[in-house]
Amino acid sequence: MSGNGFGQLFRFTTWGESHGPQIGCVIDGVPPRIPLSETDIQPWLDRRRPGQSRFTTQRKEDDKVTIVSGVFEGMTTGTPIALIIFNQDARGRDYDAIKDRFRPGHADFAYFTKYGIRDYRGGGRASARETTMRVAAGAIARKVLGNAVEIRGAVVQIGPHGIDRERWDWDSVGRNPFWSPDEQVVAKWERHLDAARKAGSSCGAVIEIVASGVPAGLGEPVYDRLDADLAKALMSINAVKGVEIGAGFKAATMAGEESGDEMRIQDGAVKFLSNHAGGILGGISTGQEVVARFAVKPTSSIRIARRGITVGGENVEVATQGRHDPCVGIRAVPVGEAMVACVLADHLLRHKAQCGETFTPGV
Amino acid sequence: MSGNGFGQLFRFTTWGESHGPQIGCVIDGVPPRIPLSETDIQPWLDRRRPGQSRFTTQRKEDDKVTIVSGVFEGMTTGTPIALIIFNQDARGRDYDAIKDRFRPGHADFAYFTKYGIRDYRGGGRASARETTMRVAAGAIARKVLGNAVEIRGAVVQIGPHGIDRERWDWDSVGRNPFWSPDEQVVAKWERHLDAARKAGSSCGAVIEIVASGVPAGLGEPVYDRLDADLAKALMSINAVKGVEIGAGFKAATMAGEESGDEMRIQDGAVKFLSNHAGGILGGISTGQEVVARFAVKPTSSIRIARRGITVGGENVEVATQGRHDPCVGIRAVPVGEAMVACVLADHLLRHKAQCGETFTPGV
Amino acid sequence: MSGNGFGQLFRFTTWGESHGPQIGCVIDGVPPRIPLSETDIQPWLDRRRPGQSRFTTQRKEDDKVTIVSGVFEGMTTGTPIALIIFNQDARGRDYDAIKDRFRPGHADFAYFTKYGIRDYRGGGRASARETTMRVAAGAIARKVLGNAVEIRGAVVQIGPHGIDRERWDWDSVGRNPFWSPDEQVVAKWERHLDAARKAGSSCGAVIEIVASGVPAGLGEPVYDRLDADLAKALMSINAVKGVEIGAGFKAATMAGEESGDEMRIQDGAVKFLSNHAGGILGGISTGQEVVARFAVKPTSSIRIARRGITVGGENVEVATQGRHDPCVGIRAVPVGEAMVACVLADHLLRHKAQCGETFTPGV
Amino acid sequence: MSGNGFGQLFRFTTWGESHGPQIGCVIDGVPPRIPLSETDIQPWLDRRRPGQSRFTTQRKEDDKVTIVSGVFEGMTTGTPIALIIFNQDARGRDYDAIKDRFRPGHADFAYFTKYGIRDYRGGGRASARETTMRVAAGAIARKVLGNAVEIRGAVVQIGPHGIDRERWDWDSVGRNPFWSPDEQVVAKWERHLDAARKAGSSCGAVIEIVASGVPAGLGEPVYDRLDADLAKALMSINAVKGVEIGAGFKAATMAGEESGDEMRIQDGAVKFLSNHAGGILGGISTGQEVVARFAVKPTSSIRIARRGITVGGENVEVATQGRHDPCVGIRAVPVGEAMVACVLADHLLRHKAQCGETFTPGV
Repeated sequence: MSGNGFGQLFRFTTWGESHGPQIGCVIDGVPPRIPLSETDIQPWLDRRRPGQSRFTTQRKEDDKVTIVSGVFEGMTTGTPIALIIFNQDARGRDYDAIKDRFRPGHADFAYFTKYGIRDYRGGGRASARETTMRVAAGAIARKVLGNAVEIRGAVVQIGPHGIDRERWDWDSVGRNPFWSPDEQVVAKWERHLDAARKAGSSCGAVIEIVASGVPAGLGEPVYDRLDADLAKALMSINAVKGVEIGAGFKAATMAGEESGDEMRIQDGAVKFLSNHAGGILGGISTGQEVVARFAVKPTSSIRIARRGITVGGENVEVATQGRHDPCVGIRAVPVGEAMVACVLADHLLRHKAQCGETFTPGV
Repeated sequence: MSGNGFGQLFRFTTWGESHGPQIGCVIDGVPPRIPLSETDIQPWLDRRRPGQSRFTTQRKEDDKVTIVSGVFEGMTTGTPIALIIFNQDARGRDYDAIKDRFRPGHADFAYFTKYGIRDYRGGGRASARETTMRVAAGAIARKVLGNAVEIRGAVVQIGPHGIDRERWDWDSVGRNPFWSPDEQVVAKWERHLDAARKAGSSCGAVIEIVASGVPAGLGEPVYDRLDADLAKALMSINAVKGVEIGAGFKAATMAGEESGDEMRIQDGAVKFLSNHAGGILGGISTGQEVVARFAVKPTSSIRIARRGITVGGENVEVATQGRHDPCVGIRAVPVGEAMVACVLADHLLRHKAQCGETFTPGV
Repeated sequence: MSGNGFGQLFRFTTWGESHGPQIGCVIDGVPPRIPLSETDIQPWLDRRRPGQSRFTTQRKEDDKVTIVSGVFEGMTTGTPIALIIFNQDARGRDYDAIKDRFRPGHADFAYFTKYGIRDYRGGGRASARETTMRVAAGAIARKVLGNAVEIRGAVVQIGPHGIDRERWDWDSVGRNPFWSPDEQVVAKWERHLDAARKAGSSCGAVIEIVASGVPAGLGEPVYDRLDADLAKALMSINAVKGVEIGAGFKAATMAGEESGDEMRIQDGAVKFLSNHAGGILGGISTGQEVVARFAVKPTSSIRIARRGITVGGENVEVATQGRHDPCVGIRAVPVGEAMVACVLADHLLRHKAQCGETFTPGV
Repeated sequence: MSGNGFGQLFRFTTWGESHGPQIGCVIDGVPPRIPLSETDIQPWLDRRRPGQSRFTTQRKEDDKVTIVSGVFEGMTTGTPIALIIFNQDARGRDYDAIKDRFRPGHADFAYFTKYGIRDYRGGGRASARETTMRVAAGAIARKVLGNAVEIRGAVVQIGPHGIDRERWDWDSVGRNPFWSPDEQVVAKWERHLDAARKAGSSCGAVIEIVASGVPAGLGEPVYDRLDADLAKALMSINAVKGVEIGAGFKAATMAGEESGDEMRIQDGAVKFLSNHAGGILGGISTGQEVVARFAVKPTSSIRIARRGITVGGENVEVATQGRHDPCVGIRAVPVGEAMVACVLADHLLRHKAQCGETFTPGV
């Protein structure tokens, strides 16, 4: 209820600041007797880890996760699972440059107005380090969903340069540092990012998450719709400014006969002839792929000097030094996947509670 | 928790189907001693009411609201406020045409797969009639927020035709049947909608909501961010497929030095030099105008025949007769305003609980 | 979250004041396709109805319930079920005697200090009329639990006079106006109540609720224990001052070897040799009968004059005229049953969500 | 929602098993800028620590708490506060004796039926070690409440031997190993406990918690009453079987004119002439002392052999060796105080959110 937890039945609560001794989360509601160990979680964290290419921050964090409760002899027990990551190199830094000043577009200002105090070291609680715990929770959500559900993400736009959807190839995603499903756009993105980095600037991105194998029937009308909860989940990621489901904003330009996905019965199953709905009708999954997209603004901490103010109420110029991601959107891919996984796991449990089974026309 | 309620401290729960005897809601958590009567609520409902131009459904509903609890001698008592609207002309209709068949893009199919049963009369619970209760709750949320907060909405795009933002004039909004802030686009929209209506088609829209006077400090990091809750609130409205805050998806195309809103101290107050953030940083309001936008897909119930299936699992053509809005987005304006009001009222109470006051640099 | 709702997955929210036009509730989370009509609910309300003997208030309320949403063609649809009871004879009364004064032991004083306003007519929201909606929600909870679960209540003490548990006979409960399982105590209770009534006084009672057929495994450690939620549920009933599970306070006087219920395997099933635990261990049901008990204080509205104060801060004598129950505990029996039913239904759904099945030693 | 968290606005979630590497909790919703360090928490944990007399378990745990987030430069920041205690000597023990068998009256059986798996080492999640985190959260709740609110507990009965309330002396509580407010009963309790311990048995207790300085107006009618939440909070403590507020079960034996606490205005303030209500009317605090009582059953792990069963479904005799508290009720005093503190802090924040201020007759 107080803002640092997410989900109803599959619920995780995170804690920790960028430069505190450790960050962690506790996940309550995980079904018992699911095989689980750190090796189920670490690979997802490794995908998010900084320093894997010149296009992400050069900070070194190995982000090694430890399970400290809720697992016994390799199986979940149904009791809360607590995860911890120790922060490294968190001490000895010099924060005088930002201690008293607010950067344009940065959460520091908002935290101060709300609380009258802020942990300014590395962004404190507002740091993207918090997202490690989303990724970890998402790894466990995937275990709850089972292997039939596959959740994959890709970057579909960097700056103004979008991919060509005709060239979409999931295999390509793991082969370039941008998680691009279109290999031909990669060279263009490299140039764009290198230019931004050299200029001391930064750039935005759009990420798409696709979940296949999602059973029909997940989602609660009217307010806890599956798409509403996905929108909240993705908008809650740092720097996100927009969320779309299926055709998204493009749906506004469509005609009614184009927008509604037609249906046929084929081999005794329901087949949709398109997926403008993004797999969700009336807030409930239909069995199609669930498709969500979100826009990430450029990193606010840049080397270019900008007009800001101080805690004391004076006008200043602010230029941020240090190792920041020139495009935080890139590392948001595993975070977006994780949030989608958590929403789906939560709604799977909710559906089991109220309905148990699902229904297919003709059966 | 079960999907039909919204908000934490200012929490409303709605009930009722399109063709049941009545629809209603109960609003819990309203502060005591606020003057309140039906005349505070009815005008907002009247704005949403159908049949006010040829561009909305010709159904006749006077949507007269009654307060049946929680108000004593003209003042709220702090106990739950229940509101009721009686449905009219709900009986005697012939639903054989849709009883056994699923329309493309309609929630009926999803309800059936989830529950194995559905009230097919007029969309049942999935009907846009449910949104009357959002508007009613929003009217009370406005009272909780007080007069300093103003929440206004406008249609900024119908089909592919967007407004010219240079011509934005709030006074224009009430003077045309489309809530357009740009009078010059109105003729184009009329032609577009008339064409769609005559073709038996429908079209989508984009709506923008602007809240001014919102105090800084509202919103809970990390998951219950103000923008995350707004995204959920707006995505929960029927037919919405996308939500943006501030610059939204356009933020992805910006450079860092363009995106972050610069700040100056002017006359002892913080002044932002732009508002790409839409009034929210790190999930917390900054005191700027809160700006949200959402995309509404075209009405799925259209006269043009489309491929659908039956409950029994057979392929059919479906063409929907009856009085449907050719562009449901138009009547979504008061609904979007209401949802924004409810989110703000909820977060205002949450902020008062934890923090009480807010802080300004230099003070 | 704001105090007028109960339960997590099976969640009901009530509204309405004693002398408002109607009272109602909305129940969210009910599984779909359960046959339901008013005839499933009305009999339980009739058991609670006043005026059925000279030992309860002579007020006339027929408490006729109407289902106004969530049921279609005789079956639940999975959407919220709204129930309404119209209040009768609510107008034209004279409340000048209590409008400005606080009765000792009455909620009026507390409401005023909290809200600075109160609906003084008949106790407003604090009236026992609110419990009609608990009984109605409980009737639906019973349908969710199914016929295998039986929930019965009895009065086991009135004033200082307890029953003889050796004479416990469930059949007796329906044959006397006190819901006593011990017929021989009835005459003593009659004399006690008649004396209290004649003296313008009132008396307290202890009620016991027994749920049999409750599946093992319900309840969430650590905070949402089944017994903790039962304690909250029963303590939330008007005038309740104590709650016990199983042996209750007597457990404090037992030795360890007496308190723990021994177990044997008999015919392949677990058999407990006693039930001091009241069917709950570690907050989780064991398959034994769930046994809870609660104490109800005497009605605070009595004819005997007592020292109270006015809203204006003056000392007064207060004597309450009117038709009050001399022993509200009697009519609390169906209310207690209903609250137990609601807690069990909620935890049944919660258990299905997380665990699905239960385990028996040796199987 | 999943059972391991407590509270709405002041909400804590605990995790960890008796013999895991560490136990911890995260407290969300704490107001910012409250001075806080480990020295505010440790003294309360020290009061609960085992091994301080021969009447508690001789296990050695120093229960040293560390704050790992949410505090910056000695002040709370408004972000979640995470606390950790490392378990000691948790390894190398031999659990073969209980690995496959269920003790009468122990939670192990219920966990197995619910989850099909259990961490049997030292009771796993059901261990009383979990209560360290309640005490730690309670210490922070006290800081939220401020110094004007004082919460004290005492043992008022051990086995069948109650205190003489006429001899109540708070100063006595800290001077004997039983937290007894009546020094003269101490010798009797010593004899009773020594006898139980020597016999390999155990005994129960009744604890009373008194909170003074509680502002009027806390508590939410109708379901989240202050007394209902206290009942849940106290019943959620391991081994508790009954909870009373004020006169409790004795209220059932009173006459109406005895039960309701009379009021007078004295020196411009409201004065109650008795406190049978335990400081709560209609679920709302009145400004009187809040008085709650709870009964703790005898420890179920005893040396006396008793009839139990195995996981495999066979009948066995079970006698528990090891260092168990002969009367867990004694160490429940600081736990009960902590739970009361947490309930009051939560309701203080809730009251501030909705009502802000309170009202006094005549003012």
